[in-house]
Amino acid sequence: MAAHSIAAAYSTISAHASSLPCGRAPAQHIGFHQLTSLSSCGLRSLLLSHYAPKSSSSWCAVSIETLERNAASGQMLEKSVTLEQNVASGQLLEKCVNTIRFLAIDAVETAKSGHAGMPMGCAPMGHILYDEVMRYNPKNPYWFNRDRFVLSAGHGCLLQYALLYLAGYDSISENELKQLRQWGSRTPGHPENFLTPGVEVTTGPLGQGIANAVGLALAERHLAARFNKPGSEIVDRYTYVILGDGCQMEGISNEACSLAGHWGLGKLIAFYDDNHITVDGDTGIVFTEDVNDRFEALGWHTIWVKNGNTGYDDIREAIKEAKAVTDRPTLIKVTTTIGFGSPNKANSYSAHGSPLGTKEVEATRHNLGWPYEPFFVPEDVKSHWSHHVAQGAALEADWNAKFAEYEKKYPEDAATLKIIISGELPADWVDVLPKYTQASPADATRNLSQQCLNALAKVLPGLLGGSADLASSNMTLLKMFGDFQRDTPEERNVRFGVREHGMGAICNGIAQHSPGLIPYCSTDVVFTDYMRAAMRISALSEARVMYVMTHDSIGLGEDGPTHQPIEHLMSFRTMPNILMLRPADGNETAGAYKVAILNRKRPSVLALSRQELPHLPGTSFEGVGQGGYIISDNSTGNKPDLIVLSTGSELQIAVKAANELRREGKTVRVVSLVCWELFEEQSDEYKESVLPESVTARISIEAGCTLGWQKYVGAKGKIIGIDRFGASAPGGKIFKEYGITEESVITASRSL
Amino acid sequence: MAAHSIAAAYSTISAHASSLPCGRAPAQHIGFHQLTSLSSCGLRSLLLSHYAPKSSSSWCAVSIETLERNAASGQMLEKSVTLEQNVASGQLLEKCVNTIRFLAIDAVETAKSGHAGMPMGCAPMGHILYDEVMRYNPKNPYWFNRDRFVLSAGHGCLLQYALLYLAGYDSISENELKQLRQWGSRTPGHPENFLTPGVEVTTGPLGQGIANAVGLALAERHLAARFNKPGSEIVDRYTYVILGDGCQMEGISNEACSLAGHWGLGKLIAFYDDNHITVDGDTGIVFTEDVNDRFEALGWHTIWVKNGNTGYDDIREAIKEAKAVTDRPTLIKVTTTIGFGSPNKANSYSAHGSPLGTKEVEATRHNLGWPYEPFFVPEDVKSHWSHHVAQGAALEADWNAKFAEYEKKYPEDAATLKIIISGELPADWVDVLPKYTQASPADATRNLSQQCLNALAKVLPGLLGGSADLASSNMTLLKMFGDFQRDTPEERNVRFGVREHGMGAICNGIAQHSPGLIPYCSTDVVFTDYMRAAMRISALSEARVMYVMTHDSIGLGEDGPTHQPIEHLMSFRTMPNILMLRPADGNETAGAYKVAILNRKRPSVLALSRQELPHLPGTSFEGVGQGGYIISDNSTGNKPDLIVLSTGSELQIAVKAANELRREGKTVRVVSLVCWELFEEQSDEYKESVLPESVTARISIEAGCTLGWQKYVGAKGKIIGIDRFGASAPGGKIFKEYGITEESVITASRSL
Repeated sequence: MAAHSIAAAYSTISAHASSLPCGRAPAQHIGFHQLTSLSSCGLRSLLLSHYAPKSSSSWCAVSIETLERNAASGQMLEKSVTLEQNVASGQLLEKCVNTIRFLAIDAVETAKSGHAGMPMGCAPMGHILYDEVMRYNPKNPYWFNRDRFVLSAGHGCLLQYALLYLAGYDSISENELKQLRQWGSRTPGHPENFLTPGVEVTTGPLGQGIANAVGLALAERHLAARFNKPGSEIVDRYTYVILGDGCQMEGISNEACSLAGHWGLGKLIAFYDDNHITVDGDTGIVFTEDVNDRFEALGWHTIWVKNGNTGYDDIREAIKEAKAVTDRPTLIKVTTTIGFGSPNKANSYSAHGSPLGTKEVEATRHNLGWPYEPFFVPEDVKSHWSHHVAQGAALEADWNAKFAEYEKKYPEDAATLKIIISGELPADWVDVLPKYTQASPADATRNLSQQCLNALAKVLPGLLGGSADLASSNMTLLKMFGDFQRDTPEERNVRFGVREHGMGAICNGIAQHSPGLIPYCSTDVVFTDYMRAAMRISALSEARVMYVMTHDSIGLGEDGPTHQPIEHLMSFRTMPNILMLRPADGNETAGAYKVAILNRKRPSVLALSRQELPHLPGTSFEGVGQGGYIISDNSTGNKPDLIVLSTGSELQIAVKAANELRREGKTVRVVSLVCWELFEEQSDEYKESVLPESVTARISIEAGCTLGWQKYVGAKGKIIGIDRFGASAPGGKIFKEYGITEESVITASRSL
Repeated sequence: MAAHSIAAAYSTISAHASSLPCGRAPAQHIGFHQLTSLSSCGLRSLLLSHYAPKSSSSWCAVSIETLERNAASGQMLEKSVTLEQNVASGQLLEKCVNTIRFLAIDAVETAKSGHAGMPMGCAPMGHILYDEVMRYNPKNPYWFNRDRFVLSAGHGCLLQYALLYLAGYDSISENELKQLRQWGSRTPGHPENFLTPGVEVTTGPLGQGIANAVGLALAERHLAARFNKPGSEIVDRYTYVILGDGCQMEGISNEACSLAGHWGLGKLIAFYDDNHITVDGDTGIVFTEDVNDRFEALGWHTIWVKNGNTGYDDIREAIKEAKAVTDRPTLIKVTTTIGFGSPNKANSYSAHGSPLGTKEVEATRHNLGWPYEPFFVPEDVKSHWSHHVAQGAALEADWNAKFAEYEKKYPEDAATLKIIISGELPADWVDVLPKYTQASPADATRNLSQQCLNALAKVLPGLLGGSADLASSNMTLLKMFGDFQRDTPEERNVRFGVREHGMGAICNGIAQHSPGLIPYCSTDVVFTDYMRAAMRISALSEARVMYVMTHDSIGLGEDGPTHQPIEHLMSFRTMPNILMLRPADGNETAGAYKVAILNRKRPSVLALSRQELPHLPGTSFEGVGQGGYIISDNSTGNKPDLIVLSTGSELQIAVKAANELRREGKTVRVVSLVCWELFEEQSDEYKESVLPESVTARISIEAGCTLGWQKYVGAKGKIIGIDRFGASAPGGKIFKEYGITEESVITASRSL
């Protein structure tokens, strides 16, 4: 077995880490570059025993599961190797925990805003997680097989910032802590993955994080099932999450946790910070359910640590027990005191969201015996925590070696896994997308979408997803795969049940797991209202989730106004960093999928029809990428008499009306404005070529609200749309009654 | 005790009922008119024993709680009076239940779309509820003290339509059933309260109905606590709801049911239609939690009826047991077979959402022994159900008599309750709203909002509400009241916890309970994303809910982009039938409340600032009602050089910029566009007087997305806004970095 020297391995890792940009996280997660460079290494146990013991640290035997190659059989055999690991105890442990508390206190005090109370209460569990339990590499926050940590109670971000700082992540320096919540810092008011390497997902809006964690755990279980081999568990990590009372109250957490229980995600371990305090006071005024009983009903294993403030061993035991239960996720309810250590504000809502104030900070310093200056990390604490850089490098190197072995034995699987880890797209993947001609049978875009999804699933190994109980209606089943279920986690059809919000947030977790995982999820367009908060997080956190949304207008017919979107298309056009695509037929649907896959840093919403649509002359697969383009025009010199703009199912109406007007001798251009965001990104020249400023005779037709269309139609044009709720009747009837017709376009053209 | 003849009471009631319009429900609920006209009646037990026994009906003793006046003491004493009531049993019962099933089957078959499977399975519980248990008056669907029924599984609307038809409601005729899901019918694809009297709330989007039911039950409990007197339970009714697997999976239902358990809403009885089938197949693929255990954890009493298909007595016993448990709501899990009676489609997803098809309908007719033509109601069934019109009239008359007694003894309480029942606004209520001058201290509009709420609470007895755990931040506490809690249900501050979605839907239920109940609810603007589905139902179902939303822009500062709305203002402007109000200062905030209260048939969103704002010269309390108005102008002849449009916290920037430009010699008009929807409703003359077509030099400034502003700014104007996510930093810093400044307006004006 070839082995680089430890120093060499470190320098490789450091080189990568130091190349991290200061602003947003790098476009390419770097995990795989290292994996490649170290693929021939096997530094495992050598590195894991490298750390020198410190004076105030005790050494205890910790069992870390790892693998050893059985040279004789050529099999990878699982073996529990006992490694020495540095665990703080006694005074040092208290000091470490208080360091976290005071970093939080001092940062909030300096910022004059923020939430120190939660980190003060959760410091013990945070310390144990990051110092004793979790496997990560501070110098490569994107190492593939790292344990994932999610702070669902995102307002307590200082817990995570302090831990990342102590663990040696480059993203959080002392200066960043001092710049908490300031312009340009990496320490925003809530954790943001795109800003701070080491933060896995963007949290703050309550309940999102626990659902993200379910997605991260799903990803692990799925990849482990697909890629692990007997004796070679190449995917093998835990997902840890801390959530608070607020997360527990949000419906999204129940949705996601019901699924986690159903799926039996045994490597998901959730810490419920049971501190009895919310913004409005004691939880007794509004939250008296039995949380652990509810989780038992959801199929979870539950534990209650009654003293989360100082019961370190109880926390350790609970984690051990949680790991021993492999067929169910575990909820560890940890009763803590918010603002622990503050003599006058602990256990009160005044410790939740405001600085303690100079006087109370002093009192807390006195109370906890903390003589240090603000932001000071005692030498012994620093020294103790310093082992994580080496340990992390060792863990990654060990895994790299394991992967190298795996690659030799299972080259095809390794190649596939590499695609998932790196996010690289296979060559010619676009070619699998179907092409259509006008002779192709008319079809609903929801059906054409299914053809695209099934074509892509063959070439994109990381494509997986499903619907919120409408797979047969949203047309999202991947026909060559079965269901992702407890006993078949290797499959790629995910059944989310009627849980749109949880679905969206779970997909955010999947997308953030690895650049090559491409989750899609689906429901009717109108029910995006149930999941909008998760979709906004997709957009903000740059998660490539494909939202395959069907039944995109009154055209769905009889189900009536509760099911008919009116304002939804436009409402997503108003949201930053998300693409709203409304294809008109087969080629545009395929083009929309190309766009959605290529946009690695933003989610896409595909709005698809329930009703049949013809394949139109002039629509274009490539045109979708420009967002708006001319599908037909009988004018010359970029001066048509009239421009008709439309999207999706109404484009055929625009085409028919244009043909009629052309027969009357007019020159008419028809523009498909399939994705406004992409059109805006085109050059001024291109935009002028499609929508020349001089042509003010413009009509738009879309079965949605009119507000917003003024942008393209201008003050002198006419907008045909719907500014009231829909109705229950056959779709064609509603189109007619609401005037979404060829006749309306022709009538409008007369008045221009 | 004076008593009208039965016939006279009926004719009074019928006259009201027949005056119901054919389209949307009447603007004024009619409950109180009758109450007034019958207030001197005391027809109680006389009427309740009026119905003649039918040949196939058995007579059994049913205890109905009612009241009898104790003439000696003058007290109203509660007394259990044994009344004879007509309960179908044996063959007649089966026939009644099958009538419901086949009305559903035939209607779906005729419409060629719809959901018959759920009504086929739930017909037994539906029959028992409407025939044996519920107290209602078919000829006055708005009788105040009626039991409320909510079909949370709204796709099963035919269950309710069939029951309303059999019970004698005028809204559902045989012809309406034949017109299921057709243009102009009262039988839309999902129940719509505004279209079909007898339907309490609009359902279909899953989970909304159960949360509405919690709101209806809250309203009962609150009003009972405020108005009932020893021996005079003037408010005394149950809320029944049927919800399915889909509702159970939605997070909103867990939110609302957690609150119902916390509040101990003992008169809420929920039937969980446990049919094991969803659109995508067996619930086993996605929903394996133990629902009853979860509800026990939420503080509910639970029962399981294992045979919901034919176990009539089990259902009856369960209801009896549920009523006996008064300190907790009850969930009755009723295991049913979807599509019960269909030999080949029962218990399969093919019975869920499609017509059975001619052949299977015939097979079902044969299987259930149903020889009748489509839509036929056998005479004995018709005859049996016919007693509900008389019974309902008697129940209402009885209550009217009770109310008359109550009014004599407690005139003040009765007058207050009348306001709540009728929805009439007290004279001069508007006068309590605060007025401000430029000398008033600058303040955040969230604080000014609290002044308005507290002023209104003094004169509007039906005003109640609260926040999703941000009362102290949203500033929504009513200072003269305590918390609505299990032991203090008469109070008016409702603590919703971090449950935005449930909060919105609960408020919909409160608003639909009585025209004079005015619920408000509150969170940060950005978290409207969590509750948008409920807000859309407010708009669609014409529920006057006041959404008091604070932290309305990047101005909130340090909490960062997860908390900063960008697209939200515009996204509500795109939604039909909801008012988005963004007041700039004190007078506009007070004006916004006036608008919100006066708009009985639509909800309002108030977008309020976290940061201090000055009281501006020219802003106007009355101006808000016009949606947009001139706050200052130094031009003459309606021809300013420039118009600057703004809303909310940016209006002060517009004012400053305008002043600067005026100093430079320009004529500048500043327009506050506080509510776009109301501005659109003004006359063309008024709109022209504010935004003259000839003035194309226009600039808008709003700390939100630019899309949409083109409508008022036109092609030649400039829009200053934000088309990216926010940032974590002090608010003033972000305003500056994002260019939401006076300088930006001035620069923009130079380029016009």
